[in-house]
Amino acid sequence: MSDHQPTPEDNFTFGLWTVGWQGVNTFGDAVRPPLDPVEAVRRLAELGAHGVTFHDDDLIPRGSTTAERDAIVARFTAALEETGLTVPMVTTNLFSHPVFRDGGFTSNSRDVRRYALRKVIRNIDLAASLGARTYVCWGGMDGAESEAGKDDHAALDRLREAFDLLCSYVRDQGYDLRFAIEPKPNEPRGDVLLPTVGHALAFINSLEHSEMVGVNPEVGHEQMAGLNFVHGVAQALWADKLFHIDLNGQRGVKYDQDLRFGAGDLKEAFFLVDLLERAGYAGPKHFDFKPPRTEDMSGVWESAAACMRNYLILKDKAAAFRADPAVAVALAEARVPELSESTLSPGESVADLLKEDLDLDEVGRRGYHFERLDQLALEHLLGVR
Amino acid sequence: MSDHQPTPEDNFTFGLWTVGWQGVNTFGDAVRPPLDPVEAVRRLAELGAHGVTFHDDDLIPRGSTTAERDAIVARFTAALEETGLTVPMVTTNLFSHPVFRDGGFTSNSRDVRRYALRKVIRNIDLAASLGARTYVCWGGMDGAESEAGKDDHAALDRLREAFDLLCSYVRDQGYDLRFAIEPKPNEPRGDVLLPTVGHALAFINSLEHSEMVGVNPEVGHEQMAGLNFVHGVAQALWADKLFHIDLNGQRGVKYDQDLRFGAGDLKEAFFLVDLLERAGYAGPKHFDFKPPRTEDMSGVWESAAACMRNYLILKDKAAAFRADPAVAVALAEARVPELSESTLSPGESVADLLKEDLDLDEVGRRGYHFERLDQLALEHLLGVR
Amino acid sequence: MSDHQPTPEDNFTFGLWTVGWQGVNTFGDAVRPPLDPVEAVRRLAELGAHGVTFHDDDLIPRGSTTAERDAIVARFTAALEETGLTVPMVTTNLFSHPVFRDGGFTSNSRDVRRYALRKVIRNIDLAASLGARTYVCWGGMDGAESEAGKDDHAALDRLREAFDLLCSYVRDQGYDLRFAIEPKPNEPRGDVLLPTVGHALAFINSLEHSEMVGVNPEVGHEQMAGLNFVHGVAQALWADKLFHIDLNGQRGVKYDQDLRFGAGDLKEAFFLVDLLERAGYAGPKHFDFKPPRTEDMSGVWESAAACMRNYLILKDKAAAFRADPAVAVALAEARVPELSESTLSPGESVADLLKEDLDLDEVGRRGYHFERLDQLALEHLLGVR
Amino acid sequence: MSDHQPTPEDNFTFGLWTVGWQGVNTFGDAVRPPLDPVEAVRRLAELGAHGVTFHDDDLIPRGSTTAERDAIVARFTAALEETGLTVPMVTTNLFSHPVFRDGGFTSNSRDVRRYALRKVIRNIDLAASLGARTYVCWGGMDGAESEAGKDDHAALDRLREAFDLLCSYVRDQGYDLRFAIEPKPNEPRGDVLLPTVGHALAFINSLEHSEMVGVNPEVGHEQMAGLNFVHGVAQALWADKLFHIDLNGQRGVKYDQDLRFGAGDLKEAFFLVDLLERAGYAGPKHFDFKPPRTEDMSGVWESAAACMRNYLILKDKAAAFRADPAVAVALAEARVPELSESTLSPGESVADLLKEDLDLDEVGRRGYHFERLDQLALEHLLGVR
Repeated sequence: MSDHQPTPEDNFTFGLWTVGWQGVNTFGDAVRPPLDPVEAVRRLAELGAHGVTFHDDDLIPRGSTTAERDAIVARFTAALEETGLTVPMVTTNLFSHPVFRDGGFTSNSRDVRRYALRKVIRNIDLAASLGARTYVCWGGMDGAESEAGKDDHAALDRLREAFDLLCSYVRDQGYDLRFAIEPKPNEPRGDVLLPTVGHALAFINSLEHSEMVGVNPEVGHEQMAGLNFVHGVAQALWADKLFHIDLNGQRGVKYDQDLRFGAGDLKEAFFLVDLLERAGYAGPKHFDFKPPRTEDMSGVWESAAACMRNYLILKDKAAAFRADPAVAVALAEARVPELSESTLSPGESVADLLKEDLDLDEVGRRGYHFERLDQLALEHLLGVR
Repeated sequence: MSDHQPTPEDNFTFGLWTVGWQGVNTFGDAVRPPLDPVEAVRRLAELGAHGVTFHDDDLIPRGSTTAERDAIVARFTAALEETGLTVPMVTTNLFSHPVFRDGGFTSNSRDVRRYALRKVIRNIDLAASLGARTYVCWGGMDGAESEAGKDDHAALDRLREAFDLLCSYVRDQGYDLRFAIEPKPNEPRGDVLLPTVGHALAFINSLEHSEMVGVNPEVGHEQMAGLNFVHGVAQALWADKLFHIDLNGQRGVKYDQDLRFGAGDLKEAFFLVDLLERAGYAGPKHFDFKPPRTEDMSGVWESAAACMRNYLILKDKAAAFRADPAVAVALAEARVPELSESTLSPGESVADLLKEDLDLDEVGRRGYHFERLDQLALEHLLGVR
Repeated sequence: MSDHQPTPEDNFTFGLWTVGWQGVNTFGDAVRPPLDPVEAVRRLAELGAHGVTFHDDDLIPRGSTTAERDAIVARFTAALEETGLTVPMVTTNLFSHPVFRDGGFTSNSRDVRRYALRKVIRNIDLAASLGARTYVCWGGMDGAESEAGKDDHAALDRLREAFDLLCSYVRDQGYDLRFAIEPKPNEPRGDVLLPTVGHALAFINSLEHSEMVGVNPEVGHEQMAGLNFVHGVAQALWADKLFHIDLNGQRGVKYDQDLRFGAGDLKEAFFLVDLLERAGYAGPKHFDFKPPRTEDMSGVWESAAACMRNYLILKDKAAAFRADPAVAVALAEARVPELSESTLSPGESVADLLKEDLDLDEVGRRGYHFERLDQLALEHLLGVR
Repeated sequence: MSDHQPTPEDNFTFGLWTVGWQGVNTFGDAVRPPLDPVEAVRRLAELGAHGVTFHDDDLIPRGSTTAERDAIVARFTAALEETGLTVPMVTTNLFSHPVFRDGGFTSNSRDVRRYALRKVIRNIDLAASLGARTYVCWGGMDGAESEAGKDDHAALDRLREAFDLLCSYVRDQGYDLRFAIEPKPNEPRGDVLLPTVGHALAFINSLEHSEMVGVNPEVGHEQMAGLNFVHGVAQALWADKLFHIDLNGQRGVKYDQDLRFGAGDLKEAFFLVDLLERAGYAGPKHFDFKPPRTEDMSGVWESAAACMRNYLILKDKAAAFRADPAVAVALAEARVPELSESTLSPGESVADLLKEDLDLDEVGRRGYHFERLDQLALEHLLGVR
């Protein structure tokens, strides 16, 4: 591991749409040629990835006939077998086509909502046939620019209807598949429904089969709201709902940058890896990034390789941080372990609690030494300890 | 109502700490004298408020003896009776004193957590005796500057322990009191636990008596994360968890401004009032603002009056917007009512759904006319319709 | 004017790329058909606009032959003559084509920088022939995702070289044309060179013919950095550098929204119009917006009309605000006019100043009554005064 | 240097108000005792600092008599002599006292503006007597919450008047002292005058003795506007206006955090040190941070030491990055040096330029390999190269 070379055991996965992104955005045309999914599979396998993921349209162009679709899937499956790459997650494109301009599951148009469900269901069948265990739902077009145009109460009803139906379908088919909702605060809509990990977790609690639905947090999406990604993931883990994760980089509150993992807030990336590794997160480490438009295809593959390498570097550093005896001392001085002690002792009553007194002056002077602890983390990150 | 003069029936309430804020912040000293709570009660009553709220320390200075405390409460109660003002909500100061420098319910220090619980319980008794029905908990010091210093899993465990204990206490005492958690993304801590309405709603679902706990969203707190407050409140209403609300103003992603209601994002304020009134929210409309340091006491009272006046102005406008026949047409053209139709018809199966086809080209051309609708809202807001 | 119907005298202008935006962005395909520039000219004239603007590529498709170009220009000019619409401003597309993926004037590639200059110069000739007086330069691709890849010192040197050359060319040709630099903090690049009005103003001071170069601030661009647009424009006016202005709407720190004017921060829009009108800004009021993807072409034209209408509504309100005797009183109580008095009297020396004493306690108690003044503005904006 | 122990030659300086911050903010009381300036001098000297800086009120309590003031200065000077610490910069507190609630140099109150000038002038005399070469002016209270209350044109006139007067005073006295304006976008005011480095640079150009006035950028202040600090400092250097610098840490667009240097955006800190060292910035590296309220005095001193240590660590890493042959290759492949070539050759005319042609297809395919370069920087930062 000390050479930070990824292997399939590291469980790194990539979306076809990441290395295959051609660079079209609001201001610029395509800068790279289309990437054949089979080529993507081969290159990702060579780089040491474990799996590949896709939106339906990434693999099967819209408007393909059944025969074309079958041929595409067969060729793709052959590439998977040849390389050993898996498909642990699949998702649906409910955003590119103009029919989704007001959303998918919560479009004001009922016929579009029905089409969105059909599109997902058909792709779920493919996902199951490829052995995927997670089905991600990003409802990026489900939102609004004007509060007047969207009835949130109805939108949440429709979103619940959609997930209840999808869960029921998966159960009926006997698929071993769970859903992961991917929150995002805005872009491409002015405001997006379920803007953060918290909103998604809260929504999931309303579902008939809430046990089948978790979250797929993305580094940059929470950071676009100025939220700390580590704390958000920790709450998802606490709720036992971290079903999948999207790793990338973002530099602050601005447009969705989708930088390679490690290229954004480095310290938060360190603490994220530390959290995932200590929590024993066993799902795919999925890179959902966009190689910048300045890169040609060689830059694309270098970015992809760097995503994995950066994770492994940070994993080593986090392990060393936790193994450092000075860190153990600093954690104790910061009273971090004391937070795991229940506030009331077993059997203690409120009456017992009320009897107690606190010396406010003395306890008010107590320092927590977080700066020392944080500096130790920083020095491990910088490699000077 | 056309003169926008508030009356107690409008159910407007103010915290003692709002009109009583002396203006101390990181960079500046006090600019206004202390405000006698009884004076606050009288002035708020004159202005047309319905109620007054407070943190324990706002009313009863820290270190007061029992006798002093009793005298203060008696004098305060007399003022309430004299003016007819109510105390519908009470809260606790778990932030000012140095003992709370690492939090209250989730301080790393167990003795501080125990003290925080005692402080809340004692104040709950007072709240109940004054007839309060809502107890707000803002855990603004419950957070971290460094991820290393706070074990989120343990913090959420401790937070759950605290709320389970408090709910149990309230039930044991037979108080008719519910809790409302107030989220905030940051400040005074670098990152605060339960940063948004969504995170709070998700947390509440984990509680033993989750039915006793809702949220107290604050306009500026969600906007500090760039989130749309209206959509956040709508999700809280959908979850039946809008137990209380803090109205104020904020101009974008920056420090917590606590401007008077109406002085921040005006369009969002309009849609907020529209939402609250249409949803039949019957709780207090609580102003949690800080009169700017540039104001003397006359400016303080003008700000307070303006908070209420602005709500009433927006209420009139929202009603006119909803009553406008052109708006009804525009809503229909925007297909807003169609979102309330279930996506599947009663009895319809997935198989039925899959049989259907959509003309993507035709539906892709469909426009939603949200601009017309939004412009109608804007013109009602501007008073030119 | 009381019906808020625009006329050419109002000097409203639109970019061809605004009403012609087809809706392509990072996540979505085109939702609207291409718009014939001549159709745009006719519709804008019907709506009451004064002028139309364009990037070279908006009018003349890339790769057109000279003959095609001449035919396009002739047909466009005929439409201008037919409708009376003017072309007060022209600009260059230095962003869409892949060659500009690392910028135009500051691309690391010298051949690209040379091509960018040629592209601008050729379009300047067209601009001059159409009578344009302002040439806008938005260098949105001039920036970086990684600090390592861009030598800022060299980039600023190249930018100065470019503007010095362009100014020299315009002088040599005897064109009556000034340049206006349009700042933007980020998007499409991670960080853009000259991110704010301030940075652009500072840069301009370094130019050989700085008198020929001003700024073209855009509402949303400054607000994407959380900056107050009104204060930014005021500094540009103070420096006598407001050569042009881009009006639109933005809801906070996020991706570039380009909403219609009035649809973003309404209060700031009010104070902006107030400032422009009081300062006697006589240049074009140019709308640089993108009709949301939810709109079909009817929505596009409604949005465009609403931009102008909203300006005129706000202009009326700002005039009424300034004419209100209560506002005059409030301004005086807020000591606003006192800021126009020089701090030292004519002839006063530092020695005189040092002799004086201030009663800190008394002056410290002084209130500024800004809340009253701001509420008066708000009530004019809301139309309740 | 490899042990990253600071020495006076490193030219690190600290404000008395940094290590002396007691922790008062909007939500919390003081958590630490007052710090005797002489104690601060001794501790900073022990830690390896070069100098100490202060606001007038940090050293001399408001209301001190002349005799008290003299005694304080004498005792402070003795400590400086004893330790060898210098006072390279001094500044003025124009914010804490209530008289400054609407600003200092641009308060609407003329008497306050006059008092502010007196306060600065008196402290300039002290600064000069202590050998300071830089006088920092942070006008944090010079701003507004409502556009109605501040006439920006007049405010900028008054600000220019103030600086012209102060420059004139310094020249008259023959002091060897330059001014450095410190920009900030907001907090404590809703919007602050001269919000960014760019706005300050632009303003300085308007001054009578603009050569005497530069900027004092602060890491967190630019980052509070989501701006890239490195690019901002680069523009200041390009304009030859980096007279001083405030180093600290900030985690994104939120309240002013003033974290220790290194604790915020680590990658930007790396590129900042890289820039300062390569540009040969010879001024003080001044730490303007606030040890978090969670720290007792031992934590304060650890934070201060860590600020310097982190700078030295990053300096080593930046040097290694620049010395790495692989980096030289990557810079060339990214065409970074090519940006230093003038776009036109000496003697080349526009006519020459216009003759040239570019193969758009070929050049459009060109990649810039910034990802490789950025990854090399990241690996140097992480210490794995």
